Amino acid sequence: MQKIIIGVTLFFMLGQVKAQNADSVFIKKMANEILTNGKAYDNLRDLTKKIGGRLAGSPQMVKAEQWGMNVMKESGAENAWMQQCMVPHWVRGGEDKATAIYSVPAQGVKNIQLTKKELDVVALGNSIGTGKNGLNADVVLINSFEDLETKKEQVKGKIVFYNYKFNPTFIRTFQSYGDANKYRGQGPSMAAKYGAVGVIVRSMSHSTDNNPHTGATRYDSAYAKIPAVAIGLKDADWLASNLEKQKIAVSFKTNGHFLPDTIGHNIIGELIGTQFPNEFITIGGHLDSWDNCEGAHDDGAGCVQTIEILRAFKALGYRPKHTIRFVLFANEENGLRGGMKYGEEAVAKKEKHILAMESDAGGFTPRALGFSGTEEQFQKFLGWKELIAPYGCSEFTSGGGGADIGPLARALKTPTASLSPDSQRYFDIHHARSDVFENVNKRELELGAVNMAALIYLVDKYGL
Amino acid sequence: MQKIIIGVTLFFMLGQVKAQNADSVFIKKMANEILTNGKAYDNLRDLTKKIGGRLAGSPQMVKAEQWGMNVMKESGAENAWMQQCMVPHWVRGGEDKATAIYSVPAQGVKNIQLTKKELDVVALGNSIGTGKNGLNADVVLINSFEDLETKKEQVKGKIVFYNYKFNPTFIRTFQSYGDANKYRGQGPSMAAKYGAVGVIVRSMSHSTDNNPHTGATRYDSAYAKIPAVAIGLKDADWLASNLEKQKIAVSFKTNGHFLPDTIGHNIIGELIGTQFPNEFITIGGHLDSWDNCEGAHDDGAGCVQTIEILRAFKALGYRPKHTIRFVLFANEENGLRGGMKYGEEAVAKKEKHILAMESDAGGFTPRALGFSGTEEQFQKFLGWKELIAPYGCSEFTSGGGGADIGPLARALKTPTASLSPDSQRYFDIHHARSDVFENVNKRELELGAVNMAALIYLVDKYGL
Repeated sequence: MQKIIIGVTLFFMLGQVKAQNADSVFIKKMANEILTNGKAYDNLRDLTKKIGGRLAGSPQMVKAEQWGMNVMKESGAENAWMQQCMVPHWVRGGEDKATAIYSVPAQGVKNIQLTKKELDVVALGNSIGTGKNGLNADVVLINSFEDLETKKEQVKGKIVFYNYKFNPTFIRTFQSYGDANKYRGQGPSMAAKYGAVGVIVRSMSHSTDNNPHTGATRYDSAYAKIPAVAIGLKDADWLASNLEKQKIAVSFKTNGHFLPDTIGHNIIGELIGTQFPNEFITIGGHLDSWDNCEGAHDDGAGCVQTIEILRAFKALGYRPKHTIRFVLFANEENGLRGGMKYGEEAVAKKEKHILAMESDAGGFTPRALGFSGTEEQFQKFLGWKELIAPYGCSEFTSGGGGADIGPLARALKTPTASLSPDSQRYFDIHHARSDVFENVNKRELELGAVNMAALIYLVDKYGL
Repeated sequence: MQKIIIGVTLFFMLGQVKAQNADSVFIKKMANEILTNGKAYDNLRDLTKKIGGRLAGSPQMVKAEQWGMNVMKESGAENAWMQQCMVPHWVRGGEDKATAIYSVPAQGVKNIQLTKKELDVVALGNSIGTGKNGLNADVVLINSFEDLETKKEQVKGKIVFYNYKFNPTFIRTFQSYGDANKYRGQGPSMAAKYGAVGVIVRSMSHSTDNNPHTGATRYDSAYAKIPAVAIGLKDADWLASNLEKQKIAVSFKTNGHFLPDTIGHNIIGELIGTQFPNEFITIGGHLDSWDNCEGAHDDGAGCVQTIEILRAFKALGYRPKHTIRFVLFANEENGLRGGMKYGEEAVAKKEKHILAMESDAGGFTPRALGFSGTEEQFQKFLGWKELIAPYGCSEFTSGGGGADIGPLARALKTPTASLSPDSQRYFDIHHARSDVFENVNKRELELGAVNMAALIYLVDKYGL
């Protein structure tokens, strides 16, 4: 009996080893294809250099959608279509400007001379403009929301300058971002609550340059909407240290406003499943980006990696069991309407979704795959670590997903996964003018696609 | 009895947990210190921008040694000295130039017009110059040493162009380098063996630019020494594809030569051990660099990380049990005389060395720590993984060391360790004009120091 058990166990073990070997061989083939014949880098160059920034509603959004459809078809999608949704249409409306006005020598000394210093600022996304005449008011230095509470009597009629620092002691920079970005999101309304007339937010970044970083703000309808800008780190340090010594007024002018909602699209390509054509695996990134940059890492990278996986599968003649959807989502940055539409349609059509995966953390060297699902699914996911680790994702972590696939996952309890590239450089360039093609490395971008392709292949082959 | 065993086991386990907690707390303190008050980035700016390239024997080498002594003292070395050694003194001697001369339209058609194209080249380190009049000869395309053997009758009087490609399918780029760099090291002598008069080597790089990459060549005394240059990748592709269609001559001029050996120094700082002052832990990088770049990643990074660990230990008031030596080695690039001297003196003085560690793979985001020692030592090393992984080095691998600490390790069987940062970008800039300060990221550099500091601390505390 024992011999039989050993025999059966051995049989299954050998079967597993053989399967793992076959998987290992196929994943290596995909890696070789992507690293040797990859088109992700060239595609990213086209998207960023020929189209550039592509905020929802902009003419560049329309061009990017056309580009996406073309590349999706060229890369071998058996089915490619545009999934329509209404998107918000915020426009910057002109150049953002700010000037600090202060006295030299310091206040209180006779013969005060007013001096000006240009500040490098960018209006926050979704923020209202100052009007033609701009805004001019004294600045109050606020280090945190707690600090705001203690100074709430001082901010009426003033510009609140949130100087909350991006915490350098978190090792993963997304933690610093999670810690700091409430000042961008809620800061303007929190300041308006106490009568402030404008807001300057320290950029959420570890960078060593002075580029300001934009991103969406969200007005609380209970309070007045006030103009708000982000400021570069060097200017923020200058402003904070000088505010300790003297009064400083800032004059700023921004021109942001909303136009009526307009039509946007998710761009969807499919490889039809041979065994389960009505069961879907989604892989995607978001096609929109902020307007002040090329959106190369955020999230051109995720888009071209998504398309690269399609291209590699076709190049190798891989026919998936399940239908794989390659999706370039609309409007992640300031509305998430693309992701919501995708989830709604899946619900309306009673679609069955096996997995949704997203790449939206930059085209940097891959380090980890994150996963959210049941414990049983997570254990299955962990079982694939040895196969994928050689390509960079040597950490398999609990918790994966992405903004765009969130609505689908919440509606259908779809398991989600995400690529976690190294995070150290991401917030140097995130939403800043330095998020350009030149700051993306070809191999790092390609290796991200390799790691995602491997997971998609394993989920397609073995299910979850 | 069983209860006693469980009790004793629990006692030891709790002791271990307590120690691990204390270690975890101290490592976090070091990380916070380095990430908040770190000087590595500023030090690197000084070294690269105020001194720049610093090849052995050059005036910049002397300046860099002075810089090293000053920073070592400022950072709190209790003992700092210059360990003298003789170093080779190769000089580039002028600008390296190359021009391709070919016919348009292709050969054989009447009315041939000669056309010229400038090629971006750099003379290989240690190579001899062409002489004043330069070199002008037809080029033979050689794809590998095997290919050379089949074409050995064709190369006499010609320039051999080794177009061996940096293999994109190796995931770790050091594998591609190990695979390709024999063409730079042995290529010139292998070609001279069959009568070639000059060599052009395809640069060992994955970069997307056209910068040529230098590095040491080694002449075999059995054959004539012939001039040799490396060529940028775009020019290499152009040359290779056009050589398939027509005859191309290249005219090149280089000016390299050796001056008499001169005096160089290892720069050594110490923190004296409180319990074992005569037992040493060495941590280092190499101070020299090629002359055609700033040597920012190679190996300015390793030098400033080494000094940063000293600074952080002092800032936190850490008194090591063993004497820790912080070493900036001389002449790694084209002679290794600094590393040899360090090993020789250790032998002569019968020093006891616990560990030698090196950072010489760039200031990129840390991924792995490598270790070489006995199996027992390796297991002890593995036991520290959980403590260090949160800071980036989540892979603990067998095999660690570095060129500079090699002679010591071989002479005294000293265990060795190395920092392995992410390798994807390293050969984009290695030995090329793009190895500059601007291509180093502040946090990635600092995190490398954090991971090394953690290992040094644990080895100091627990031995090996």
